[in-house]
Amino acid sequence: MLIVMQSNATNEKIQKVIDFIKEKGFDAHVSKGADHTVIGAVGRKVMDKRDIELLDGVKEVIRITSPYKLISRVFKPEDTIINVNGVKFGGGFSGMIAGPCTVETYDQMDITAKLLSECGVKILRGGAFKPRTSPYSFQGLGEEGLKILREVADKYNMAVTSEVMEVSQIPLFLKYVDILQVGARNMQNFNLLKSLGEIRKPVLLKRGLSATIEEWLMSAEYLLAGGNREVILCERGIRTFEHITRNTLDISAIPVVQKISHLPIVVDPSHATGLRDKVAPMSKAAIAAGADGLIIEVHHSPETAVCDGAQSLYPEQFAELYKELKVLAKVVHKEF
Amino acid sequence: MLIVMQSNATNEKIQKVIDFIKEKGFDAHVSKGADHTVIGAVGRKVMDKRDIELLDGVKEVIRITSPYKLISRVFKPEDTIINVNGVKFGGGFSGMIAGPCTVETYDQMDITAKLLSECGVKILRGGAFKPRTSPYSFQGLGEEGLKILREVADKYNMAVTSEVMEVSQIPLFLKYVDILQVGARNMQNFNLLKSLGEIRKPVLLKRGLSATIEEWLMSAEYLLAGGNREVILCERGIRTFEHITRNTLDISAIPVVQKISHLPIVVDPSHATGLRDKVAPMSKAAIAAGADGLIIEVHHSPETAVCDGAQSLYPEQFAELYKELKVLAKVVHKEF
Amino acid sequence: MLIVMQSNATNEKIQKVIDFIKEKGFDAHVSKGADHTVIGAVGRKVMDKRDIELLDGVKEVIRITSPYKLISRVFKPEDTIINVNGVKFGGGFSGMIAGPCTVETYDQMDITAKLLSECGVKILRGGAFKPRTSPYSFQGLGEEGLKILREVADKYNMAVTSEVMEVSQIPLFLKYVDILQVGARNMQNFNLLKSLGEIRKPVLLKRGLSATIEEWLMSAEYLLAGGNREVILCERGIRTFEHITRNTLDISAIPVVQKISHLPIVVDPSHATGLRDKVAPMSKAAIAAGADGLIIEVHHSPETAVCDGAQSLYPEQFAELYKELKVLAKVVHKEF
Amino acid sequence: MLIVMQSNATNEKIQKVIDFIKEKGFDAHVSKGADHTVIGAVGRKVMDKRDIELLDGVKEVIRITSPYKLISRVFKPEDTIINVNGVKFGGGFSGMIAGPCTVETYDQMDITAKLLSECGVKILRGGAFKPRTSPYSFQGLGEEGLKILREVADKYNMAVTSEVMEVSQIPLFLKYVDILQVGARNMQNFNLLKSLGEIRKPVLLKRGLSATIEEWLMSAEYLLAGGNREVILCERGIRTFEHITRNTLDISAIPVVQKISHLPIVVDPSHATGLRDKVAPMSKAAIAAGADGLIIEVHHSPETAVCDGAQSLYPEQFAELYKELKVLAKVVHKEF
Repeated sequence: MLIVMQSNATNEKIQKVIDFIKEKGFDAHVSKGADHTVIGAVGRKVMDKRDIELLDGVKEVIRITSPYKLISRVFKPEDTIINVNGVKFGGGFSGMIAGPCTVETYDQMDITAKLLSECGVKILRGGAFKPRTSPYSFQGLGEEGLKILREVADKYNMAVTSEVMEVSQIPLFLKYVDILQVGARNMQNFNLLKSLGEIRKPVLLKRGLSATIEEWLMSAEYLLAGGNREVILCERGIRTFEHITRNTLDISAIPVVQKISHLPIVVDPSHATGLRDKVAPMSKAAIAAGADGLIIEVHHSPETAVCDGAQSLYPEQFAELYKELKVLAKVVHKEF
Repeated sequence: MLIVMQSNATNEKIQKVIDFIKEKGFDAHVSKGADHTVIGAVGRKVMDKRDIELLDGVKEVIRITSPYKLISRVFKPEDTIINVNGVKFGGGFSGMIAGPCTVETYDQMDITAKLLSECGVKILRGGAFKPRTSPYSFQGLGEEGLKILREVADKYNMAVTSEVMEVSQIPLFLKYVDILQVGARNMQNFNLLKSLGEIRKPVLLKRGLSATIEEWLMSAEYLLAGGNREVILCERGIRTFEHITRNTLDISAIPVVQKISHLPIVVDPSHATGLRDKVAPMSKAAIAAGADGLIIEVHHSPETAVCDGAQSLYPEQFAELYKELKVLAKVVHKEF
Repeated sequence: MLIVMQSNATNEKIQKVIDFIKEKGFDAHVSKGADHTVIGAVGRKVMDKRDIELLDGVKEVIRITSPYKLISRVFKPEDTIINVNGVKFGGGFSGMIAGPCTVETYDQMDITAKLLSECGVKILRGGAFKPRTSPYSFQGLGEEGLKILREVADKYNMAVTSEVMEVSQIPLFLKYVDILQVGARNMQNFNLLKSLGEIRKPVLLKRGLSATIEEWLMSAEYLLAGGNREVILCERGIRTFEHITRNTLDISAIPVVQKISHLPIVVDPSHATGLRDKVAPMSKAAIAAGADGLIIEVHHSPETAVCDGAQSLYPEQFAELYKELKVLAKVVHKEF
Repeated sequence: MLIVMQSNATNEKIQKVIDFIKEKGFDAHVSKGADHTVIGAVGRKVMDKRDIELLDGVKEVIRITSPYKLISRVFKPEDTIINVNGVKFGGGFSGMIAGPCTVETYDQMDITAKLLSECGVKILRGGAFKPRTSPYSFQGLGEEGLKILREVADKYNMAVTSEVMEVSQIPLFLKYVDILQVGARNMQNFNLLKSLGEIRKPVLLKRGLSATIEEWLMSAEYLLAGGNREVILCERGIRTFEHITRNTLDISAIPVVQKISHLPIVVDPSHATGLRDKVAPMSKAAIAAGADGLIIEVHHSPETAVCDGAQSLYPEQFAELYKELKVLAKVVHKEF
């Protein structure tokens, strides 16, 4: 249930509505927009909306038939802009995240970070805990990987992002990482989402392999319902019958999400296609369609990469692409 | 089997190879490239490739393990450029096709054609025979629709395209239409494909609802095997679990097809998304990814359209989009 | 629109309703059930249902919100039973159809038909026109194949079924074949469906590769709207992400279809799984779930079969399975 | 790598091979079959198989090209039979699990358990922690639910199963529950799988919504690699384009899994179809296809159920079905 306050509603009146809602057993999430303050009443109880409409300063009460609440533009019409290390996602800004699939060694990260930093990249990616289909595949360096990531990033004044797989790993990630990634396979790991709702660092939430946009946004809703407002959505391809590409990048998810939600949406063309030579055209397509950012795999030596070398760009390919994307972004009125 | 001739092979030598192949019961498809003449030997018989390697002027004989032959870049490395009414598809050129879903009346077509023509559009679309899930839905005006389409197009010096559904309709289409469309539901109507292989007008072949790219290209192979080299592929969205959009536009099909095949690939963002406000971003994405053209639904009054009004652009929306696309095309080095 | 007549409505009253409907430009399809006569008014025009409610003998008029009309149990509550050569499909009866994927030679068909006939099979299958993904694959023997099929079937007092691919082939099929099959790729070849609606021989309509049950039933509706009431539906597996089996047999389609429609539904476990050793368990599953019949591929020598040998049963496997299925059918109260 | 010992290999020789493998940094999993002892060497290191072939008593060493190891029939040819409260799953035995979707109150569970117990059911299901798409949906009673489940089950001498969602919940489940369920959304929650590999209670692993059989078996491999050999696989329907049923029950997964793996596979027709009237035919289909058990939702009053009432059987429907299934099971030579 959303309570839209009159544009001239005083803070006192707003507070009275909040108190009333809480008394009824709901959580109140307040969002101050340009025109109106909107209060989201979140909870499992049933409440007669007429009880609220009678309160002073209330303009209207909207029963949500849509399953979305906090992620919705009805709740918050303005774009959420997330700022990490000076890089902005959302609200006319596109941000770039780049780096290798997996943290392998200090030297590997150092070489790659240096090259990316020289291109202007300010957020470094790299996996330390890896979700692998087989228990016998390399599972990542663990905390050691996070340490390397942090150390190298600090050297080049970069922020870092890495995938968290388990509730118990969260304290470790809070220590080392600036954006916590939730992988596609964990999109509906609701306990992980609940715990990440309680932290106050940005979370990048990947779309599940066969998830609908509604399911994906409902997972984001878990994060916001917990109180964490810094959520970046990441389209990374969905499973289809097409097998030449690893997945099918759903570019149309960009305008669809942007219409429903105020949250920024970035695109991962590397996992979506799984093919190095498809990363550039799909990056351009994403930006042309209005994506709020990209996350691209780059490896200084893809042939010897521990994992996903086939989809990693060479540093010089990345540098060239990044330049082209900046030109393209201007044409669609995005600041990249 | 492909026979690559030496670069200095005389016409006489080439003809001898062709004669030999035909004697063995194969069809010979000759393609003169910049450097080499390549002869495609197409047939069901088995032939010992060593027999051909011994002929004069033959550089090498390649047994095709890939299922593709004539649509493949191995057979014809250069882009096929298809020119309809001065509009080019392929080889660095992007072409525009626009018009309503269905031909309704002369006046409707006249108004729309006039507006599109003023924007610079030179190929008009409009359905006369409509494939409908229900036998009780409007099935199109039939020949009357084709007549209107032709008459209006001639008035504005436009070419026309419309969907052919059945072998027996082909003579009618040859009379009225410049590009014959094969709809998604007929992508594997092999008898229709065989018959369209025998005509000498361009065919626009839509991808089936759940077809893989390989299956789609094999359907194009039917057309080329019949002798029709003017085939335009059309990505129009595939069926996925996502239901906010009608289908999921597979933008990555653009670079995938362009790598395997010399045929041009255009994109239909109207059927792919089914939503008017998604047509513009997806058109931009397609062009940014390198599409060789677009086919867009425009109706002078979408609210009253007989079919698919929800996905039809208003003429002024189209005019604005077309301008933006021309700017975008330049950035990715396409002539639109 | 369905008009349910009172149980005591005279023939005269029924005829008056029919005349009224026709005058309004609708087709009338009459179905005499145990209790009530129901008249289906089929057409594109709009009619005020109150006009009909006022006619004598009319019990009620139901506006169909569901897209189905003639295939629906609302129109015809009793099971349609289709009888071919003494084999019944529907209404508590399960029928068996068996034979090779493709007619190869007279001897091949003669050996197979003899073995099947000895097992008690009375309907023989065999392809003469084959829908093939590649234009270079064997496309079937054509009319010669139909002739062999007919000749061999007559020798053993069997009926035959084979796939028709094109409107122009229908006269040929009417000459040789007892049940005309529509393949999965032609499920939405609406012109073919319209033409098959006009014949008066049973049609076996396969479900499309990615078709929903609703789309499939709407294709059956085309046949019934044309006047052909002898339609057998055939579930043959749908495309999913699972690749160990060729397709995924949707067994739940059996009770789903039987609830919505009066038409019989048979199952093709051979094409669904593509694997010989999965045909027996899936045949049993289909019968246990209430299937009205099976269509199974059997080849006297699968190793040398021209096509689909991997999914063809050996004759002795088939004989064993057929015995087991008869026992199983009794348990679920089906006569096989 | 699998080491097959000679049939007369002494325990001493077997132990020497185990010691050698461990020295090389691998885990050794020993499986004593009827004829041969097989040792699975599991680990990330590389080992020259010739080193092992030279050891005394070794018959052969097989390098696994398939991704499966411990779940495979190559490793353990005999069916794994899992016995819970006298109910057997696998090896010719089919087991029944039944109960409501969710534990609501003590009385609800008491009524249902009494009725099921009278039918002969010995394993009770009931959710306490519920994975819900929306953060605002009822999330289950938590530990209170597990307590009720245990108390009621003890009263009727039943065992219980319930879904565990998170690593930190495992100790709680070990206290109350006999079979720990992993839900479809957690099939690739690899940390959860690793932790459940370390316990010594049966785990019921549901197939993911869009998981391939190979991915599912690889998740089971995580459990076995951790040392837990009591794994029951559960097919519960996969996501397809068909929407009349909630999911599409992949019955063919039964024979496919049984060929590859020694683990028992049960079927959940309630979640697969989501429709009460489809549960009976699909249960029969599953048993006819050879399923090693069923898990069925039953509620004493489905109309008032907190969740999934639409797919829950009435107790009398269940009683009737259970009787029919026992007859059917005999026909396919299963003990139910």
